[in-house]
Amino acid sequence: MIENRLRELGILLPIPPKSAGSYIPVVVSGNLVFVSGQIPIEHGQLKYQGKVKNNQYIQNAQNAAKLCIINALSQLNTYFGTLEHIEKIVKVSGFVNSEERFTEHPKVINAASDLLVDIFGEKGRHTRIAVGVSSLPLNATVEIDMIVEISE
Amino acid sequence: MIENRLRELGILLPIPPKSAGSYIPVVVSGNLVFVSGQIPIEHGQLKYQGKVKNNQYIQNAQNAAKLCIINALSQLNTYFGTLEHIEKIVKVSGFVNSEERFTEHPKVINAASDLLVDIFGEKGRHTRIAVGVSSLPLNATVEIDMIVEISE
Amino acid sequence: MIENRLRELGILLPIPPKSAGSYIPVVVSGNLVFVSGQIPIEHGQLKYQGKVKNNQYIQNAQNAAKLCIINALSQLNTYFGTLEHIEKIVKVSGFVNSEERFTEHPKVINAASDLLVDIFGEKGRHTRIAVGVSSLPLNATVEIDMIVEISE
Repeated sequence: MIENRLRELGILLPIPPKSAGSYIPVVVSGNLVFVSGQIPIEHGQLKYQGKVKNNQYIQNAQNAAKLCIINALSQLNTYFGTLEHIEKIVKVSGFVNSEERFTEHPKVINAASDLLVDIFGEKGRHTRIAVGVSSLPLNATVEIDMIVEISE
Repeated sequence: MIENRLRELGILLPIPPKSAGSYIPVVVSGNLVFVSGQIPIEHGQLKYQGKVKNNQYIQNAQNAAKLCIINALSQLNTYFGTLEHIEKIVKVSGFVNSEERFTEHPKVINAASDLLVDIFGEKGRHTRIAVGVSSLPLNATVEIDMIVEISE
Repeated sequence: MIENRLRELGILLPIPPKSAGSYIPVVVSGNLVFVSGQIPIEHGQLKYQGKVKNNQYIQNAQNAAKLCIINALSQLNTYFGTLEHIEKIVKVSGFVNSEERFTEHPKVINAASDLLVDIFGEKGRHTRIAVGVSSLPLNATVEIDMIVEISE
């Protein structure tokens, strides 16, 4: 049970953040579920903002990436009322707000990827992109969206 | 009827812009339809170019985002001969050509999101990402791609 | 046969690069196949790195884009044991590591698009985005991901 696994990991899914605009957090099409880009908001406040300056300072960004995943899962949990129907994590797109010289995007987004595998096991193993961007909404440090597959 | 709704809104779908490269504007896979990234071209000319400098000057970018949506819908309309088979707008990806300090990407892409809801109502409510990028093709201000679901 | 076509084009699919992180290269969901973002690695080494400076120097970036596609196809070939079941290339997302003034992203990603059409013919004609980003993993010049459709 994913619910038990979250408890073991000490993860409490929050009430998901509101959309920062006129869109919705989750759309289902067949077995595919699309989750809007999530930024590292906690208790209604952006917790991680600003650019990742260089390869020495990535821990904040890793925490930001994990919070994006927790928010994405809380969106799914609110939409479906459970996470048990998730068949697999299909795709994670990670956008890192970073200086031009930054090159360690994989390490940042690995924090997100590892968390998904910790929670979902083999079902959590996904494809992904990790890219650096020059700016993000509200100056968030990371934005992550997700595609998951649900069982019928 | 979407056709009537477009007329009410005063929107005339143009002949869609040609691809800026060796790709095609629309690919259908099952019920999902992928639309290539659209830039704000009107009558064959790029209408909105240059970066969004700061949070004070976003109206141009909003108009650019709306034009991207109109171009995406004109691609779909040309491909299918109608927009009536669109079951829902699944995903919008918005890339804003912006200075590093820009943080109001949601306001820019909201113009696109709002237009989709104006046209399609509940079916127009979608997931999305909005990110800032350091450059775009032809120095376009915004690039937007879309995934929609069509009825069988 | 795609295999013959690759031979005609002088393309030898390499052993695909390892993931630069805790994700997997290929996930299948129904008829859709998602391929993780590929960077221009050859024989375990990043072959093309650094930003595209301006519109005069794009040939390196074009070669990088082609290598990304070859790596994506090698991922698919390793996963499925063949490329013959590819029904169509659905979507290509191209991220070009570029200076702010760069505007020729389409020319860079065209090298990728053209290669796909060279290999797959009509089935290789895809939708795409091409955007500029301020940084990429390992300072790669290009990152490309792909969605393809396989026959049942």
